[in-house]
Amino acid sequence: MRDVVVRGVGMIPFGRHAELSYTDLALPAVVDALQDAEIDRPQIEAVYCGSSFGGMLIGQRILRTAGLTGGPVVNVENACSSGATALREAWIAIAAGMYDTVLVIGVDKLTQFDGGPIPLDRTDWEAANGMVMPAVYAMRANRYLHEQGLGPEALAGVSVKARANGAHNPYAQMRTPVTADQVLASRPVADPLTLLQCCPTGDGAAALVLSAASAAPAHRRHVRVLASVLHSGRFTAGPRDMAVAELTEISATEAYEMAGIGPDELDVVELHDAFTIAELMYYEALQLCGPGEAVKLLESGHTSLGGAQPVNPSGGLLARGHPIGATGAAQAVEMVWQLRGQCGPRQVAGARVGLTHATGGGLSGLDHGACTIHVFAA
Amino acid sequence: MRDVVVRGVGMIPFGRHAELSYTDLALPAVVDALQDAEIDRPQIEAVYCGSSFGGMLIGQRILRTAGLTGGPVVNVENACSSGATALREAWIAIAAGMYDTVLVIGVDKLTQFDGGPIPLDRTDWEAANGMVMPAVYAMRANRYLHEQGLGPEALAGVSVKARANGAHNPYAQMRTPVTADQVLASRPVADPLTLLQCCPTGDGAAALVLSAASAAPAHRRHVRVLASVLHSGRFTAGPRDMAVAELTEISATEAYEMAGIGPDELDVVELHDAFTIAELMYYEALQLCGPGEAVKLLESGHTSLGGAQPVNPSGGLLARGHPIGATGAAQAVEMVWQLRGQCGPRQVAGARVGLTHATGGGLSGLDHGACTIHVFAA
Repeated sequence: MRDVVVRGVGMIPFGRHAELSYTDLALPAVVDALQDAEIDRPQIEAVYCGSSFGGMLIGQRILRTAGLTGGPVVNVENACSSGATALREAWIAIAAGMYDTVLVIGVDKLTQFDGGPIPLDRTDWEAANGMVMPAVYAMRANRYLHEQGLGPEALAGVSVKARANGAHNPYAQMRTPVTADQVLASRPVADPLTLLQCCPTGDGAAALVLSAASAAPAHRRHVRVLASVLHSGRFTAGPRDMAVAELTEISATEAYEMAGIGPDELDVVELHDAFTIAELMYYEALQLCGPGEAVKLLESGHTSLGGAQPVNPSGGLLARGHPIGATGAAQAVEMVWQLRGQCGPRQVAGARVGLTHATGGGLSGLDHGACTIHVFAA
Repeated sequence: MRDVVVRGVGMIPFGRHAELSYTDLALPAVVDALQDAEIDRPQIEAVYCGSSFGGMLIGQRILRTAGLTGGPVVNVENACSSGATALREAWIAIAAGMYDTVLVIGVDKLTQFDGGPIPLDRTDWEAANGMVMPAVYAMRANRYLHEQGLGPEALAGVSVKARANGAHNPYAQMRTPVTADQVLASRPVADPLTLLQCCPTGDGAAALVLSAASAAPAHRRHVRVLASVLHSGRFTAGPRDMAVAELTEISATEAYEMAGIGPDELDVVELHDAFTIAELMYYEALQLCGPGEAVKLLESGHTSLGGAQPVNPSGGLLARGHPIGATGAAQAVEMVWQLRGQCGPRQVAGARVGLTHATGGGLSGLDHGACTIHVFAA
């Protein structure tokens, strides 16, 4: 298996872009990634495109307009991990020696569903009976707060941090700071989660150019991929603790082993904060703190900008937004910018090692669809 | 890159199974593939699921019911090549040393669209303006027949052969033989293509278990994967000859080089005969004959059962059917059965080397979406 580096990245500002097509969304990100990589289209040997709702041949349709045709294109779907799964497939293909240079795209357009629900399979009986994502995370929140003897106000700090960071991120959908009072007073979505504790829906795209380390020009320092892990959840019929994110725990343990680092060596993390409670649960599952210590970790400032291990300096899903298939790729783009020191007012000072975590897809009433973790190093 | 073998295969009879869910369709194929491989679920380290219309997390939903959860699952979409692309991704991952044993699923259910059209992207302007697949292949047929100075009756023999073979295949959707007169007298779909020259729509699923050759038990002979190739089409704005299948030509040339064989060394071929003209064009693109020689090759019996190089002994897409994402996997399953000598009355005697070819996805008015070619050997 060969070492893999990120040579170039691109992203569009996330938001509600109902007037743009999938191609319109993805094209600027692709062009920016190629320019950032200092390569032209013929050097791209293969493309992996992650999208949940782009439809048949979404990658090929984008690439035709980009004038980037003729090579292998693989479209990948893994719910909230679609973009990160595309990244992982590209990493496998390069590590295998199959290709030297591969383009990764993550893109989705959720405004296409305005006026109607996101299409669900008829056999997805949990969702059909109300176990949609806000409900799942609300149940997890209630369980977690009960176990810790905390009130719902303990959650608000996650959104406050996310929006404070997002205010510094020109790519974020939500760029205004909010107070804890505003978070708690916003309209209820699924008790105890209020509107400002749920990621917004929107549209976005991000792209990366990966190369074999041996094929990347030596005159530039490239961000290295130290680990790439994917798992889907185990389905067990017995009782489970909804407040434990088992799938993320398993994936993180494998990622740390593959990268040869421990969680204390991370300088920055981009994790899947689709809801406030998610960030707290994933602190524990990623071993940034022990069980039950997440709220204390948050309130200590440890995970804030300026803290020892900033989490979601981009604003995360709560502020950057969460166009399903785009998120995993966007997290990786943000991480590359962080490890290059290009993030301006949201820069994590001296960041050398970072982790990205995309997970989701409701099955069995939990986030059992797919969990993807990547570790990057400057 | 490590050698890869097929350890086990499974398939359901293709047909119109409106009452079955995606999981219902795929599960028997998965169970049969595991049993055929003589392994149980914990030995499967990863799963690639190819489907065009299964929706979000289709693989995970199938696998949950199969009790096969916890490992990495990647859903792959590449139009008519979806199942074959899943096969190729699995092959890459094993060849890379990432996994020893991987499950591949190809599945789609086209009866879900009965009463309405298959959903197309609004930006797919060729299709929106009438360049749907039967129209594209009708234009190609007209061009080809014009160039060769032939009448439309030259096409009928492809369907006669397909249905004759399908009559021997318990997995085929169409199991009754037809005559050339019946083919030509069936109702017109897109001139010169009549109904019996177009593959039926339907539902189906197929599954394969792949392993590293080094990880497969030595007490059995396994079918080897000699080549796995994927390309998407080049988009060129200038004039092109619609009767030349450039994408298949390029892919085949690469596949023969990877496999270290020439087209004359093939004992059996399963190619993408979505329409009669397609089979003729692909004879030439796969170099089974020279340019303009396809009708002569067909009429000589060379590609019939009992001929020197039988093509589509399964009945192909015209008789087995073409549930989009299932086809590429089904071709591979048929090929494994052929190379093991398990095909009964449709067996190609002494078959040792075979090629499968799945291509499609209309873009730019041609089959520019994705072309996948695999070469297998007993």
